Amino acid sequence: MNKKVNISIDMMGGENSPDKTIDGIEIFIKRNKNLNDYFFYLFGDESLIKEKIKKKSIKNYEIIDTNIVVSDDLPALSALKKGKGSSMWKCIESQNLLNSDVSLSAGNTGVLLVMSKMILKTLEDVDKPALAGLWPNNKGMNVVLDLGANIECSEKNLIDFSEMGAALYQSLYPNDMAKVALLNIGSEEIKGTELLKSTYSKLKILDEMGDFKFNGYIEGNHITKGDCNVIVTDGFTGNIALKTAEGTANFLTDNLKKALSANIFSKISSLLSYFPLKKFKNKLDPRKYNGAIFLGLKGPVVKSHGSTDSLGFSYSLEVCYKIAKGQMIDKIKYNLGHIKKIKNDEK
Amino acid sequence: MNKKVNISIDMMGGENSPDKTIDGIEIFIKRNKNLNDYFFYLFGDESLIKEKIKKKSIKNYEIIDTNIVVSDDLPALSALKKGKGSSMWKCIESQNLLNSDVSLSAGNTGVLLVMSKMILKTLEDVDKPALAGLWPNNKGMNVVLDLGANIECSEKNLIDFSEMGAALYQSLYPNDMAKVALLNIGSEEIKGTELLKSTYSKLKILDEMGDFKFNGYIEGNHITKGDCNVIVTDGFTGNIALKTAEGTANFLTDNLKKALSANIFSKISSLLSYFPLKKFKNKLDPRKYNGAIFLGLKGPVVKSHGSTDSLGFSYSLEVCYKIAKGQMIDKIKYNLGHIKKIKNDEK
Repeated sequence: MNKKVNISIDMMGGENSPDKTIDGIEIFIKRNKNLNDYFFYLFGDESLIKEKIKKKSIKNYEIIDTNIVVSDDLPALSALKKGKGSSMWKCIESQNLLNSDVSLSAGNTGVLLVMSKMILKTLEDVDKPALAGLWPNNKGMNVVLDLGANIECSEKNLIDFSEMGAALYQSLYPNDMAKVALLNIGSEEIKGTELLKSTYSKLKILDEMGDFKFNGYIEGNHITKGDCNVIVTDGFTGNIALKTAEGTANFLTDNLKKALSANIFSKISSLLSYFPLKKFKNKLDPRKYNGAIFLGLKGPVVKSHGSTDSLGFSYSLEVCYKIAKGQMIDKIKYNLGHIKKIKNDEK
Repeated sequence: MNKKVNISIDMMGGENSPDKTIDGIEIFIKRNKNLNDYFFYLFGDESLIKEKIKKKSIKNYEIIDTNIVVSDDLPALSALKKGKGSSMWKCIESQNLLNSDVSLSAGNTGVLLVMSKMILKTLEDVDKPALAGLWPNNKGMNVVLDLGANIECSEKNLIDFSEMGAALYQSLYPNDMAKVALLNIGSEEIKGTELLKSTYSKLKILDEMGDFKFNGYIEGNHITKGDCNVIVTDGFTGNIALKTAEGTANFLTDNLKKALSANIFSKISSLLSYFPLKKFKNKLDPRKYNGAIFLGLKGPVVKSHGSTDSLGFSYSLEVCYKIAKGQMIDKIKYNLGHIKKIKNDEK
C-alpha cells in the first residue's frame, strides 16, 4: 500500500482561519516526520493562503482558489443556497472530481453535513448518516455515535451505527479489537426501551460475524472505563451525554484551578507539581480528540471544532490521514454487508 | 410553625446498616445544633439498634421493632412479596399510621419506589412519580429530574416534573427562585423533538403563574453553570446524563490523583496545597448531594445511596428535614393546581 493519501482541506472554515488551518497543517507535519505519503488540496482564498503558507515548511500541496466562504452564522438553508463554489463545497466535491480521499472542515456542522450528503450521497443500505466523536477512556479512546445528527433512531439505525463505528475504530486503531456497547440506564439484559432490547438481540447475532465484539449495555458512568470502545446511542442521548461530560470536566477543572491559586502555599505547590499537572492536562487535552467524523456517506468527511486552535486542527488532520489510510469506507461497506446477510438468513 | 417534624428512618437498608444509619443521625444532630424541632421514628431490629444507639448522643426517638429486612439483592417482585412488615415497609407506612412527615431509606431503589407507590399512593393528577436528585452548579445546587423512574415520558409528565421540581427546589432553598429548564441538544426554540417543543410552549404559559421562571432549553454543558436550577428531562436521558457526569468526575479525579503522586516533587506539592485541595474536594463531595427524592406521591420519600457512608446518610436526613419543614407536598399540590387551571383555560 504505497498509494498517497489525498486530503482536502477547507482552509476558510472556523475561527481564525486560514491562520489556524495553515498552522494546523504545519503542526501535523512536524509531529509526523516519519510520514511522507500524503498530499493536500487546499481550498480557499489563493492569494491569502499563498502569502501565509510561504513562510511555513509545508510542501506537497495544491491551492484551489475559491472566493465564497460559508459564514458560520448563516442558517443551513441560506448557507446552502450561497454555498455552491465555496471552499467547503469544493473541498467535499474534490472527492468526486480530484480523486481526494477525505475532506476536512472547521466550518458550520449542519451545513457541512447537508452539503456532504448532497455531494457524496449516502451509502447504499444506510438510512441515516451519523456523527461520531472520540472520547478518552482509561485504556485509550472510545468512538461514540451518534452525537446529534439523528435525534430519533430506529433499530436499523443503531445497528448501522455499530457496524460503522466498529469500522471507524478499526481504521484508527488497527491493532485493537472494536468492542461495541449500547448506552443504556442499566447493564442487565431486561433494562431499557423496547428499541434497545431488540437492537441488543440483533447485535448479539452480529457479534458472530467478527466485525466487533458485542459487550452488551453500558451505563454512563462506565464510558471512561475502557472495557468497551465503540459506544452506540441515538443522537439525542449521545449529544446530551457528550455535552454533560464536557460541562462536568470544565466545572471540575475550573474549581481545581481556583483551589490551586487560592493562597501563596497552593501557588508554590502548583509550581512544584508543574510537570505532573502538565502531564495530566496534556493527557486529557480536549484538542486531542476534537471534532467529529461523518459516517454513512460514500466518502469520509471530518469536522473540526470551529473554535479549536491550530493544535486541535492538527489532530483532526491526523484523524483524516488515519481513516483514509485505514480504508474506512471499504471497512464500512464490508461490515454493512453482514447486516444484509443476517437479514437474509432471517427470511 | 412550631410543629415538630417527624422523620421515619429505615435503619436496616444499605451497606453497613444500622451502624451507618445510627452514625448518620448523630452527624446530622451535631451539624444542626440550632435545631430541636424534629423527632425520629427508627424502624429495624430493636435490640441491635438499642445496643448501638445508647453510646450516642441521640435523643427524641422511638424504635419500632421489625424483624424483616428487604435484601438489596432480591428482585423487586420477591422483595415486595416478602417485604410487608419489613423496616422499609413500616418506615413508609408510618406516614399513614404514625403521623410521620417523611420517610428515608438507603435500601433498594426499585423496591422502595414500588412500596412507596403502594402505600402512599400517587397524587391526584400525577400519572408518573419521578426521581429527583441534587447536582452542584457554580452558584449552588440544581434539582434534576427524572433520573430513571420513567424511561419514556409524555408532555404531561414533563410539565408535572417541572412543577414538582420547582416545589422541591423552593422547599430546599426557600430564599431562591426556581428556574426551570428543559434538557435539550440546542438552546434555540426550534431544536429538539416534537415532545420537547410542545412542552416548551406549555411551560412558557406556566411561567406566568409564578411557581417558577421558565428559562427555556438547556444543553448538557450548561447544567453546572447555575443560570437554571431545576433541570427537567425524561428518565432515560436524566439517568444517562447523571451517570455520565459521575463517570467523568471519577475519571478526572483519578487521573489527577495519579498526577499528584507521580514523583517526590508532586507529593511535596500535594502536601503544600493540602488545604486548598481539601476545600476543593469538600465543595464537590458527592456525599453532600447523594440519593434521590421521590416526587408525585402523597407523602415524601427520600432514598439515600446504598453505598454511601454515614456522612452521606446525614445529608439525606437533612433533605428529609428541609422538605418536611418546607411543606413540599403542599407546594406540589399548589403548583399542580396551576396545570389544571391552564388546561381549563384552554377549553
